[in-house]
Amino acid sequence: MEKLKCTINYDGSQFTGFQIQPKSRTVQGEFEKALTKMHKGTHVRIHPSGRTDTGVHAKGQTIHFESPYDIPLYNWKQALNTLLPGDLFVQEVVKVPDSFHARYDVVEKEYRYYVWNERESDVFKRNYFYQFPYRLNVEAIQEACRQFEGTHDFTTFSSAKATTKGSKERTLYQVSCEKRGSEIEFIFRGSGFLYNMVRIIVGVLLDIGKGRREPADIAGLLAKKDRQLVGETIPPQGLYLWSVKYKGEN
Amino acid sequence: MEKLKCTINYDGSQFTGFQIQPKSRTVQGEFEKALTKMHKGTHVRIHPSGRTDTGVHAKGQTIHFESPYDIPLYNWKQALNTLLPGDLFVQEVVKVPDSFHARYDVVEKEYRYYVWNERESDVFKRNYFYQFPYRLNVEAIQEACRQFEGTHDFTTFSSAKATTKGSKERTLYQVSCEKRGSEIEFIFRGSGFLYNMVRIIVGVLLDIGKGRREPADIAGLLAKKDRQLVGETIPPQGLYLWSVKYKGEN
Repeated sequence: MEKLKCTINYDGSQFTGFQIQPKSRTVQGEFEKALTKMHKGTHVRIHPSGRTDTGVHAKGQTIHFESPYDIPLYNWKQALNTLLPGDLFVQEVVKVPDSFHARYDVVEKEYRYYVWNERESDVFKRNYFYQFPYRLNVEAIQEACRQFEGTHDFTTFSSAKATTKGSKERTLYQVSCEKRGSEIEFIFRGSGFLYNMVRIIVGVLLDIGKGRREPADIAGLLAKKDRQLVGETIPPQGLYLWSVKYKGEN
Repeated sequence: MEKLKCTINYDGSQFTGFQIQPKSRTVQGEFEKALTKMHKGTHVRIHPSGRTDTGVHAKGQTIHFESPYDIPLYNWKQALNTLLPGDLFVQEVVKVPDSFHARYDVVEKEYRYYVWNERESDVFKRNYFYQFPYRLNVEAIQEACRQFEGTHDFTTFSSAKATTKGSKERTLYQVSCEKRGSEIEFIFRGSGFLYNMVRIIVGVLLDIGKGRREPADIAGLLAKKDRQLVGETIPPQGLYLWSVKYKGEN
């Protein structure tokens, strides 16, 4: 058997999330359908770096799977892209050791969140940005971003529904915000992320930008470990799983 | 009765074109459904500057309709946008004289066509650009663009299926091409356009960019008035009806 790692992109707008579900169009479902076709009906299971929710996009999700086929990597890419639908694309296929696991071996992930800061909605951005109509103090947001960097328990900023057992401690290497015209880009790089963590943090950062909270509040919110203290999870369509790094990659 | 003109935007990817059709989701169908709801079940017909095909987008389509309601223009806009789906948006509503007609009174239209000039497809661009993988000579394209400007009979560059009777003569005020990174933007401004005209012309301009034709061929192709002489109509998803001008507007 060969173990293969793929870097994949998808436009999340027409998928009911990543994880396979009966009767729903999911990333895993479409990918496994293509692999099963290549394997003449034998079901091939894929394993992602992590799931993504309905409407969330990926510029660099990674998955692994095993196959008895020994074919050149470029042919793997071509064959898969021929069979996959237009909103799901394989960027790269590489061979990995038997011991590799797309989820357990992650050392760093990057997410981005895009906000369209205009009063009026834009039909071309509705699936790719979160439209936020209020005037924002970007410097206050940037100051708050720095409060999130480093190692913290992120219980306050993760879904209460999270099934993750164990520590809610994660390390964020970068949290940043930049405004270009009406587009606001948030970048998060970290050792790992809890369920809904980016969407909850960006929601709080937007509250700060609107003046409803202060950058200085963050330390207290982190310390209290209480999801009830912050606002709702903001919509999925602004969120992109941007890249995933593994041991030994630079 | 009040006569109203609306400037509307739509993302054409989920519409089976503009014109109403039974069992298909069309721009006219969705718009008239919203208007009929506002008019308590009385059907209100809309009239566009012209139809657009399946997959074609609009940044500034115009329509007119008549209504017995005398409500402030801003409320018209709000009410319609509340009832319309997310991929169809009313930008502006203005009152127009009884004699106004969104189609017959057009004095100028602008279309744009966007090409994604990369070897690999991009899941986020598939509905908004035509992906063209070949290396292009942009200067040759720009030279050819100039050959289309002015008044010509565009029979060679319009669908043979066109039902338009009368003259195939049109005046193009601007035909231009600009490359920014991997994106190529074509702009067409003219007195009017024949069916599929922009998509056929851009197809020929791409042939020229690839070196399969010369800019000097255009005059002869125009003179021969024969649709068979040029290639296929390129895909709709790169095409945008950008704006429509009427008498008295600057």
